[in-house]
Amino acid sequence: MTYKSTDIKAIVAEILDAKKDKGGVKSLYFVGCGGSLGALYPAKTFMEKESASIKSAWINSNEFVHSTPKDFGENSIIVLACHKGNTPETIEAARLGKEKGAAVIILTWLAESEIVEFGDYIVLYSFDASPDHLAGDIDYSGEKTMCALYVAVELLSQTEEGYAHYDKFYEGAGMLTNIIRKARAHVAERSLAFAKEYKNDPVIYTMGSGAGYGAAYMESICIFMEMQWLDSSAIHTGEFFHGPFEITDANRPFVIQISEGSTRKLDERALTFLKKYAKRIEVLDAKELGLSTIDASVVDYFNHSLFNNVYPIYNHDLATERQHPLPTRRYMWKVEY
Amino acid sequence: MTYKSTDIKAIVAEILDAKKDKGGVKSLYFVGCGGSLGALYPAKTFMEKESASIKSAWINSNEFVHSTPKDFGENSIIVLACHKGNTPETIEAARLGKEKGAAVIILTWLAESEIVEFGDYIVLYSFDASPDHLAGDIDYSGEKTMCALYVAVELLSQTEEGYAHYDKFYEGAGMLTNIIRKARAHVAERSLAFAKEYKNDPVIYTMGSGAGYGAAYMESICIFMEMQWLDSSAIHTGEFFHGPFEITDANRPFVIQISEGSTRKLDERALTFLKKYAKRIEVLDAKELGLSTIDASVVDYFNHSLFNNVYPIYNHDLATERQHPLPTRRYMWKVEY
Repeated sequence: MTYKSTDIKAIVAEILDAKKDKGGVKSLYFVGCGGSLGALYPAKTFMEKESASIKSAWINSNEFVHSTPKDFGENSIIVLACHKGNTPETIEAARLGKEKGAAVIILTWLAESEIVEFGDYIVLYSFDASPDHLAGDIDYSGEKTMCALYVAVELLSQTEEGYAHYDKFYEGAGMLTNIIRKARAHVAERSLAFAKEYKNDPVIYTMGSGAGYGAAYMESICIFMEMQWLDSSAIHTGEFFHGPFEITDANRPFVIQISEGSTRKLDERALTFLKKYAKRIEVLDAKELGLSTIDASVVDYFNHSLFNNVYPIYNHDLATERQHPLPTRRYMWKVEY
Repeated sequence: MTYKSTDIKAIVAEILDAKKDKGGVKSLYFVGCGGSLGALYPAKTFMEKESASIKSAWINSNEFVHSTPKDFGENSIIVLACHKGNTPETIEAARLGKEKGAAVIILTWLAESEIVEFGDYIVLYSFDASPDHLAGDIDYSGEKTMCALYVAVELLSQTEEGYAHYDKFYEGAGMLTNIIRKARAHVAERSLAFAKEYKNDPVIYTMGSGAGYGAAYMESICIFMEMQWLDSSAIHTGEFFHGPFEITDANRPFVIQISEGSTRKLDERALTFLKKYAKRIEVLDAKELGLSTIDASVVDYFNHSLFNNVYPIYNHDLATERQHPLPTRRYMWKVEY
């Protein structure tokens, strides 16, 4: 049996009910690899900021398997993201969850795959499977990032902790698809200019903060490094001034996310510096891209979904201009590793 | 009044005693910027792996200040690292801790600075202040990384959680100085070869996993980017195969840490791949560097200190060969930001 994002409220209720005589849920682990790990980042920041008593961590699948937290077991929920259900490290993490009696929630795109036998709940997320993710006709509130957030939100809300901004959160989620579609159209022209400007650069940095840092990480490792073979790093805007900013010069390109919400000041400070010393900057501003219509109490957690879904417009144009199609790989799925 | 690393046991006891009628200690935050944040990384991994009930997080100072966890207050300990006590964002985080009634532990090198008025406990750590940190005559078990770990170890040990490997941990800490000194001598020759080989490269990656990932992060942002103005990124060896590895070719240089302990398999897997497709690799192997004499139950947490203190030998040689002295900056402390 499979579920969808709107079933997560009931899933969490069922888990809490099943575990109530065994000590309840004490820890929530977000586990995956690469882009699937990056997509869980907003949920990690949600737990860090909003929860007082539930232990939470965000860990690469292979590290989780080899260096498993001691408390991981029947008082835990593990949320795994695995796009096609065939990533060996993530399958192993799911298997470990099953073995140790944790509640295993698997976020995936396919109903049938190797991983599903180790999941208590297989949640099928929405995903834009069109070439280069350009169609934009999906329900963005059903993506894996949002599914992981719903688990966190429901867990807080359904336990004694509570979550004061519950209604505002779901209200924001309901606004997401419309905001993202408009934002994607909004960047269409500048994305073409970006592609022409940066087509010959060997390195492009991404920058971000808060929940949105996950999107900067994904763009850096999954697009620039993996799909364009460019040197890259995702620089946290708060960390920028404590080392990385010394590489700044008039030539090095930076794609900087200006988030909406509590960490916006960090991003703006980095942008002010870049404007003075960098020159070649692409700015993705969540405020300009329409995110501010979401309530301030919850807007932080939606930055990631916005940026992560605006990037495909840029990625397609850059790949076209560089004559390096996004699906091209030299190692992934091609050699043994 | 100031303290040293050996006072941390008593400091934690005093905090627990002071908070016992107020609900005890429920969260432990590690907060800093850049290298000072990186140095706290092993303590973060310790809490994630060893603790079942104490909430813990590792957050950049400016993000912590602008996006403060809701539970941060009188049931929290905040451990801040601030080398000269003058980093504005970290001072602000300490001030916030004082204001909210958290126990504020400041790890610093200077007894007198702006930050100390906001600390309940000022712990002076050992630090190799010689040019390029070459002297190597300090007590490495008293460094900031170890101080943060002692807070974590003591907190677990002195609460109902307990820490089964307490004695082995301190036994390992006692062995650290000797291991590090030998390791630094061991790499002297290959470090000169490294400097000659990579002196003209515009990009150098670092790689690591587990607690040692903190050292890979510091080497990337504080040395390669900040002190040598090279493009760089710290790649987690478990994440490598899910994006970053597509940049691998026969020219791109990688410095890879092979840790001792539970995540060694991740590092070895990445190394196997690099040996096949990269060619230009510098390997720092904790086993070869003598870390295996520390008990397997605790060895994970000492990788960071080992690697982080072997790097200075390389850094000095690279800076010399590149005629780019490590203390040279173009922005830090020179312009407004």
